[in-house]
Amino acid sequence: MRVLLVGAGGVGAAVVAIAARRAFFETMVVADYDPARAARAVAGRDARFAAATLDAGSAEAVAAACREHRITHVLNAVDPRFVMPIFEGAYAAGADYLDMAMSLSKPHPTRPYRETGVKLGDEQFAVAQRWADAGRLALCGIGVEPGLSDVFARYAADELFAEIDEIGVRDGANLTVDGYAFAPSFSIWTTIEECLNPPVIWEDGRGWFTTEPFSEPEVFHFPAGIGPVECVNVEHEEVLLIPRWVPAKRVTFKYGLGDEFIEVLKTLHKLGLSATSPVQVGGVSVSPRDVVAACLPDPATLGDRMRGKTCAGTWVRGTGLDGRPREVYLYHVVDNEWSMREYGHQAVVWQTAINPVVALELLAGGAWSGVGVLGPEALAPKPFLDLLTDYGSPWGMEER
Amino acid sequence: MRVLLVGAGGVGAAVVAIAARRAFFETMVVADYDPARAARAVAGRDARFAAATLDAGSAEAVAAACREHRITHVLNAVDPRFVMPIFEGAYAAGADYLDMAMSLSKPHPTRPYRETGVKLGDEQFAVAQRWADAGRLALCGIGVEPGLSDVFARYAADELFAEIDEIGVRDGANLTVDGYAFAPSFSIWTTIEECLNPPVIWEDGRGWFTTEPFSEPEVFHFPAGIGPVECVNVEHEEVLLIPRWVPAKRVTFKYGLGDEFIEVLKTLHKLGLSATSPVQVGGVSVSPRDVVAACLPDPATLGDRMRGKTCAGTWVRGTGLDGRPREVYLYHVVDNEWSMREYGHQAVVWQTAINPVVALELLAGGAWSGVGVLGPEALAPKPFLDLLTDYGSPWGMEER
Repeated sequence: MRVLLVGAGGVGAAVVAIAARRAFFETMVVADYDPARAARAVAGRDARFAAATLDAGSAEAVAAACREHRITHVLNAVDPRFVMPIFEGAYAAGADYLDMAMSLSKPHPTRPYRETGVKLGDEQFAVAQRWADAGRLALCGIGVEPGLSDVFARYAADELFAEIDEIGVRDGANLTVDGYAFAPSFSIWTTIEECLNPPVIWEDGRGWFTTEPFSEPEVFHFPAGIGPVECVNVEHEEVLLIPRWVPAKRVTFKYGLGDEFIEVLKTLHKLGLSATSPVQVGGVSVSPRDVVAACLPDPATLGDRMRGKTCAGTWVRGTGLDGRPREVYLYHVVDNEWSMREYGHQAVVWQTAINPVVALELLAGGAWSGVGVLGPEALAPKPFLDLLTDYGSPWGMEER
Repeated sequence: MRVLLVGAGGVGAAVVAIAARRAFFETMVVADYDPARAARAVAGRDARFAAATLDAGSAEAVAAACREHRITHVLNAVDPRFVMPIFEGAYAAGADYLDMAMSLSKPHPTRPYRETGVKLGDEQFAVAQRWADAGRLALCGIGVEPGLSDVFARYAADELFAEIDEIGVRDGANLTVDGYAFAPSFSIWTTIEECLNPPVIWEDGRGWFTTEPFSEPEVFHFPAGIGPVECVNVEHEEVLLIPRWVPAKRVTFKYGLGDEFIEVLKTLHKLGLSATSPVQVGGVSVSPRDVVAACLPDPATLGDRMRGKTCAGTWVRGTGLDGRPREVYLYHVVDNEWSMREYGHQAVVWQTAINPVVALELLAGGAWSGVGVLGPEALAPKPFLDLLTDYGSPWGMEER
């Protein structure tokens, strides 16, 4: 297996740190638009790693890099604006493809908070037959959420339930950053984007539909001492992926933003500060959202000051194999102190990065295989969960 | 009486509209740094009004304008950054002076939320003797708040109470702006400034001291259908003025910002968006507070879309003249629909503007007179309140 890792940012650098401990691949070329960042990510690693410069926005450049390095698998670790050129570049070069977020959505032009427009992943699923016909695999959404959360959904359907009423991905954390009144542990730009898009829900018989942002608030109790966190509906890939392969009556994604963060996002939106189109301020023109990001510390630099745990997981309610009502939460927790000490990467990016490495190892060994455009729930969950545990990062389950 | 009105913004233009209906003055020169704005303010008015161009930041320019037009009274209607040059310019030219906000404060360098530093008006009171010796009057803080609120305090002490435990200025409104999720009815830049400065409180025996912003929240019930509004301590001139002339055990100012507005201000502060020092955003450098202001509509343009009432008033608790506990709220309400219809000016600026016009008329007629640097509570309250009623804008009182 010869991997092209596109993106040496927070997640990309953590992928390198995790993969470096594994033997399943022959080479990993780490490509970034910033040569220094790519070089930093591979510095001190073994000879299987190499740095390269790449414009992720050019499918031709991605294909050329694949051909140059005889790449078998492209792992996309840049932001979702670049999904399509990387996906197309991998296809053009005959490589398999993995990502952690799918092609972007566009709201319904007239009923944005009731009906879906272009959905997350639509552009990729539109060409699924072409990938299948070519015998190539695009494994989409194989980070932690989407990713591990989808594997949990499939595991619940295969091993725990006779019938499923609802699958609800629930994400929560108790991370704090010392010395800052307010410091998001992930990109505020991206968080605004995903939280202000119309959240999507799937129901059997109705299909996909959307709601107002921050809809259906609920307090979800997270394990490992995180405790209760206010969660709201957010647009996320799982809702688009899970119903394609896992039978359930309803699929939702709720993000444990907490009331403080929700209030901040609502306020930014209300004041027009979430907008990306520039406003005129004195003699200059500037995007309000960029100003917000510039006023906050860069989350990638905060690992040393962060404290607490982050939890990703899938809550499932339905009828158990014994015919009785059952409700479980399958989850994965990372303690920031542990991930910083063990890998030098903060919990949120580390938790995202481990999953595509596990997936690559399963594909390398043949435990996972397939063609077309697939979600993680299209493949057998047990090998994935077992290998995750083998990596030293076990998952858990709570009966509720 | 020959008046120089400095500033033809929202309040200045409303001063012109109100004064135009009164006969007490010989001329009113309306001066602004923007000649077009000054010309607009006097367009269609009678021959007593003239427009002029003036740099309010230059005491020399203010004095020269006074001499050129043989000015007897300077009315300052620009923002408080310009108090000192206008105040000094009037003195240099031998004119009396009126303003609606006093010279600015500076927080205590080491204990900003416990002790006062430079207080509002300190720079003006420092030269009070000079004004008195020259036989000139500087009547400071004669808008609505400070202004009418101070007159109410003196009225309560003179006519209603044997002893006063607390004088609390309380300001609240139920104004909404059609078509906007969030649209302040006054400058967000100034509101951030006054709300994030340490609020000041006066207590007998302790003197002036400061607290954290937004301290001592209380729900105050406003009259005229406005109802309950969440109020918090805010730095305001009344707390510096009232104790100099009116005996009370405690003086406070609370602003009825409402929980939504308080949340917005806290969030802007938490995210660093209230800051005035520039941040680097891509290739440009910009002040976050200016970006916030640029994202919101200009309050001066919103009169036609505003609905509701604004209330300014003074709540007093103590021992009545009959020796029994007494609690009253003296207040003045303006309905935006009425002020737009009658004067073409929105309620908040109109309510500010009427008070200095009433004061000028009392000074012109001799009902008010004095020398030195005085607050409104240094002068007899009844003539003021009677003339305000005569202007068609009566005040009210609630026993509580």
